[in-house]
Amino acid sequence: MDAIDVILTKRDGGSLSDEQIDWFIAAYTDGAVPDEQASALLMAILFRGLDDRELARWTQAMIASGTRAELADVGRPTVDKHSTGGVGDKISLILVPLVAACGAAVPQTAGRGLGHTGGTIDKMETIPGWRSSLSAAEVAEILRTSGAVINSAGPDLAPADGRLYALRDITGTVESIPLIASSIMSKKIAEGTGALVLDVKVGSGAFMKDLDQARTLAETMVGLGAAHDVRTSALLTQMDVPLGRTAGNALEVVESVEVLAGGGPSDVVELTLELAREMLGLVGLDAVDPADALRDGRAMDAWRAMVRAQGGDLTVVLPRASEIEIVTASATGTLSRLDAMGLGVAAWRLGAGRARKQDPISATAGIVWRATVGDRVEEGQPLLELHLDDPTRLPAALEALAGAIEISPDPVPAPTLILDRVT
Amino acid sequence: MDAIDVILTKRDGGSLSDEQIDWFIAAYTDGAVPDEQASALLMAILFRGLDDRELARWTQAMIASGTRAELADVGRPTVDKHSTGGVGDKISLILVPLVAACGAAVPQTAGRGLGHTGGTIDKMETIPGWRSSLSAAEVAEILRTSGAVINSAGPDLAPADGRLYALRDITGTVESIPLIASSIMSKKIAEGTGALVLDVKVGSGAFMKDLDQARTLAETMVGLGAAHDVRTSALLTQMDVPLGRTAGNALEVVESVEVLAGGGPSDVVELTLELAREMLGLVGLDAVDPADALRDGRAMDAWRAMVRAQGGDLTVVLPRASEIEIVTASATGTLSRLDAMGLGVAAWRLGAGRARKQDPISATAGIVWRATVGDRVEEGQPLLELHLDDPTRLPAALEALAGAIEISPDPVPAPTLILDRVT
Repeated sequence: MDAIDVILTKRDGGSLSDEQIDWFIAAYTDGAVPDEQASALLMAILFRGLDDRELARWTQAMIASGTRAELADVGRPTVDKHSTGGVGDKISLILVPLVAACGAAVPQTAGRGLGHTGGTIDKMETIPGWRSSLSAAEVAEILRTSGAVINSAGPDLAPADGRLYALRDITGTVESIPLIASSIMSKKIAEGTGALVLDVKVGSGAFMKDLDQARTLAETMVGLGAAHDVRTSALLTQMDVPLGRTAGNALEVVESVEVLAGGGPSDVVELTLELAREMLGLVGLDAVDPADALRDGRAMDAWRAMVRAQGGDLTVVLPRASEIEIVTASATGTLSRLDAMGLGVAAWRLGAGRARKQDPISATAGIVWRATVGDRVEEGQPLLELHLDDPTRLPAALEALAGAIEISPDPVPAPTLILDRVT
Repeated sequence: MDAIDVILTKRDGGSLSDEQIDWFIAAYTDGAVPDEQASALLMAILFRGLDDRELARWTQAMIASGTRAELADVGRPTVDKHSTGGVGDKISLILVPLVAACGAAVPQTAGRGLGHTGGTIDKMETIPGWRSSLSAAEVAEILRTSGAVINSAGPDLAPADGRLYALRDITGTVESIPLIASSIMSKKIAEGTGALVLDVKVGSGAFMKDLDQARTLAETMVGLGAAHDVRTSALLTQMDVPLGRTAGNALEVVESVEVLAGGGPSDVVELTLELAREMLGLVGLDAVDPADALRDGRAMDAWRAMVRAQGGDLTVVLPRASEIEIVTASATGTLSRLDAMGLGVAAWRLGAGRARKQDPISATAGIVWRATVGDRVEEGQPLLELHLDDPTRLPAALEALAGAIEISPDPVPAPTLILDRVT
């Protein structure tokens, strides 16, 4: 087999054979095919696409670069959720214990944040002692006992994806539906879940700005799940406005605990319950109402069990930023724009995010918005709290907020949260 | 400036700015942009193309990665020829001294062979003592005195092209008209010639299989020449049938000397004279008839001067292969097919060519065909001589010849040599 032949096949609009795909992914993963040939193939795929068979095989080859976990013996149906990433998206922190409290097992493998979107692992790590490098045996044991786990991707979880993702990032080949779909699905399928709900974000603060594109991505991933015997469905949800009232690592943990305690922002509660119902439906637990589990404390109990099972100490108060800068409302009216991208970039610049994988992040930096789109505000009232420990970061964060906030004299409806559903 | 932005601009169908092009070529040449980003851009260019302004600037940036030679003071008009490569194409060996004998200076920079096509430098190097690593001062001095030089590309001749060409070769990005055109023209413009005739080969043994594609390439290169003040024209010539009667390094030198002596195969003579007239016309020497210079020995004198000026010893008989294998005609009739690609690959496998730049080549290996398309042959007569020193190479060479030869019971015309002209 020859890398140039594989590149030429795709470049010229042909369909890659199963053998070509298996060979290329394996040879690239073990270093026999160099980066420059892989990037040429990725660019050709960006232009030519992959058909359903090619995409299923490509995903299969990425899974086969590591090991697909076996979770059939944990004693409960397994179901997970994946979000394509947004601003203020702390849903996993609530959803994983909530769905576990409803009788399923959630074997979530999560990632760290990059750019303007936060990462579940970064948020959880603000809890002292909490760790996420669990072995396969530890994951299975926690799922068996409490049903909820949030783990980091280990070296055996679709390692081809790690190399390909880093390469795509620097070669302008990120925005390809089949490459995005195979990257996400190879990891989710490899983690061993039996069912999966995708939260595909659409809007300014999301990777997908356009509803049709997001729907295509959702359909592609749902099809890939089916091809690998993972019952999969997707919700398309809005990300023009950030979720909840906080963006920042420890800030989002605090907000998540508010929701688990039965309170919290209504959009976070609503989206969490929609996703929970979707997940429970996929594993035949339709009869269970997750709203009950939020109300009666079972979700909070599952959260405590989950955090403790991974070494987290819930007796310690989470750290707070040393400085809070207030941004006030410039007019009286209805908040009509609170741009997810603007707030996401501002929170990142305050220290909540990282530009490169190896950069450190701040546990405490971030933003609290005291009103969201559709809310009435009075001129001069505090609108944003910018939390930071490093005052030199303030100017760049304020710059990112330019144009992010608008106040209308007329009433404005709250944004629609769920835009579509793909099954 | 950022490599990813450059890639995304071209990927998404935009036009690269002059600054983007200059920066990218310079940064790639000095190693600041890695191969994987360059190959992604090359693949995007393959899909999206380059417009006239981009292409002229891209070529300019490749030239500016080294130095454009200044040959205004050699005392004669300068004109060169470039062939896109064919089988049995020894025209440069005859044409360079012939045109010098007619009063022009020919500052030819030539390359080595790769794959099934031979290289002028490889052929000339079969002459004992001949060397081609001349300094700019040596080139200018030879041009001033005898007018004919065949030099290798030095490190200052569009070095960006060397890196880009090697990268294109392994990333499936060779077959892009703007990339081919800029690769050829950057070197020809940088060598300092004032005028240029392109021999764009079309057919089975050529890089361009299709006349329309070849015409597009010719037009693109002629336009690039004009944009850089090099008067340029092109002939499109057939390469379904190999040129002359020999393919192989020393074999082609011997055949070239036959033509310089006033004999040799008629197709080689005809094409050489057409190209010579085209070159002389570009520099205002239309009144000189190159056929006279072949007839009266002036071309041969110029050949001897050229070879001696580069250290070649013409008193030594060129080496011959230790073994000659005869292929006979399988029927009586007219030779209707003598496939250039089949013969080219066979000669390469006998040892005349190389698969990788660093491979050694044989001076003596090659093929002599005793008849060409349109010639009458008798069953059992010797048709091909396969020259080789390493008998283990014979089976693979014979395999390449399968289907390459056909004999028709009906008369068949000789192929048309000149297919079109682009000015």
